[in-house]
Amino acid sequence: MNHAQDDPRSAVLGGFDTAMGVRMIKLTRDEVVLEYDIDKRHRQAYGIVHGGMHCAMVESACSTGAGMDAMLRGQSVVGVENHTSFIRAARDGTLRVVATPITRGRRSQVWEATVRNQSGQIVATGRVRLLCLEPGSELAGKIVERP
Amino acid sequence: MNHAQDDPRSAVLGGFDTAMGVRMIKLTRDEVVLEYDIDKRHRQAYGIVHGGMHCAMVESACSTGAGMDAMLRGQSVVGVENHTSFIRAARDGTLRVVATPITRGRRSQVWEATVRNQSGQIVATGRVRLLCLEPGSELAGKIVERP
Amino acid sequence: MNHAQDDPRSAVLGGFDTAMGVRMIKLTRDEVVLEYDIDKRHRQAYGIVHGGMHCAMVESACSTGAGMDAMLRGQSVVGVENHTSFIRAARDGTLRVVATPITRGRRSQVWEATVRNQSGQIVATGRVRLLCLEPGSELAGKIVERP
Amino acid sequence: MNHAQDDPRSAVLGGFDTAMGVRMIKLTRDEVVLEYDIDKRHRQAYGIVHGGMHCAMVESACSTGAGMDAMLRGQSVVGVENHTSFIRAARDGTLRVVATPITRGRRSQVWEATVRNQSGQIVATGRVRLLCLEPGSELAGKIVERP
Repeated sequence: MNHAQDDPRSAVLGGFDTAMGVRMIKLTRDEVVLEYDIDKRHRQAYGIVHGGMHCAMVESACSTGAGMDAMLRGQSVVGVENHTSFIRAARDGTLRVVATPITRGRRSQVWEATVRNQSGQIVATGRVRLLCLEPGSELAGKIVERP
Repeated sequence: MNHAQDDPRSAVLGGFDTAMGVRMIKLTRDEVVLEYDIDKRHRQAYGIVHGGMHCAMVESACSTGAGMDAMLRGQSVVGVENHTSFIRAARDGTLRVVATPITRGRRSQVWEATVRNQSGQIVATGRVRLLCLEPGSELAGKIVERP
Repeated sequence: MNHAQDDPRSAVLGGFDTAMGVRMIKLTRDEVVLEYDIDKRHRQAYGIVHGGMHCAMVESACSTGAGMDAMLRGQSVVGVENHTSFIRAARDGTLRVVATPITRGRRSQVWEATVRNQSGQIVATGRVRLLCLEPGSELAGKIVERP
Repeated sequence: MNHAQDDPRSAVLGGFDTAMGVRMIKLTRDEVVLEYDIDKRHRQAYGIVHGGMHCAMVESACSTGAGMDAMLRGQSVVGVENHTSFIRAARDGTLRVVATPITRGRRSQVWEATVRNQSGQIVATGRVRLLCLEPGSELAGKIVERP
């Protein structure tokens, strides 16, 4: 379950993504691509991928891209709003999410991510608003710095 | 990791919730309460709970409640929109989510869920829109029926 | 204030759009374009265009396109969720909104619309989920039929 | 159309609210109440209140409350995300929106607002995320200061 961590591109993914078998396919400040193979960890009781899993992939992809961009400017980011629309149910196969920026300001960023199945059909699509934090900001009682 | 399944209230939770150690505390058509203890499965790279995990708890709680209500009317539901706001970062301890209905129509439902930490502070809060499906509707290539 | 009604393309716009001086530029089932010139009707107290005006243009453009598509299949639509992100403040000039479909199912549609200023910069962008109604459905105590 | 401006509580409402006949009923840092009587300015082509009008009332109420709270701390606010759910169609009568805070931090605020008809039924409900700006911040090319 943890072998994704052997891949250096996955160093920026955390415990959630590792527990869910998410692989980092591409990571730049302009585009992030993630992928995973659907299994029972990802499904809800009806047998289709859990809507929260789609939200989580949107969140992972958008916040990784925004974080990359912010880091290059000496900032870090924290997601504040996630809005995800579920378009088509998925039961099996590999899902791929691609995130791109809508706006990257000094105060906040908005990224958009779309999840597609192997046929290229949209499964889910969402947007994340992130706040940009200057070094030394506090978050949940700790000073913000990249681990 | 799977012992939550021994609890009959958890029968309605699926593989995602089980993989994440989510416990069903209360399940009625008017209120759903879920809970989990934060560990590394739930965190992103900064060490706080992954935003997608909050979205997922909002989704699980809202769709379980809406599904319960729909079932009592001979329908089932499918979530179509999840909008979650992140209010306060969480690193440790137990998080509890409570979902209640905003509207329960014949065509669609809207539920709201709020995640709180052990001090009762709001950690995240979101809303889910669900479509109501009549028996025999198709979803992802299968006829909808409760497992 | 009402001369927009003389243009046949504007027949599908209602009182709100007319009161706000919104012009229909293009209307097909695949794309809708609206436009208006900013004046004091559109601004909030800080002197920039009111966020709700951006939401409204997203709503008008998306629901007009979805309604056009639905009509050609003998259905009508009703918007149920509007999520709009504000990207860049606008004070003056002409704003143009372009809406395109993300999904057009038998049960619901999702459209996306982006508002740009005359320099082509994104001012706001949002998504609308709409339910599709069969003829004879009831809405707010009246049978649904296109006026 | 402009007599609402004679009421001192309406001084904080801008051109949009005035053009739409919106009345300020209550304004504190903990609760904002607005009201308007439905007429043709508020309706879309089907004869019901335009979804964007509901978003706008959510936006006006939330941003007025957040702005009041911020002002007392020497800040100002700018709305960045508006998510509104439409619950029940409205054709006539008076609509009232009540906004209350979900969180009021130093960096951002989230407010929630619900629109009800004269029978007290929910017509729409939404949430707005706002960024807090320190004095001297720039917004749309101008230094932020309250008019």
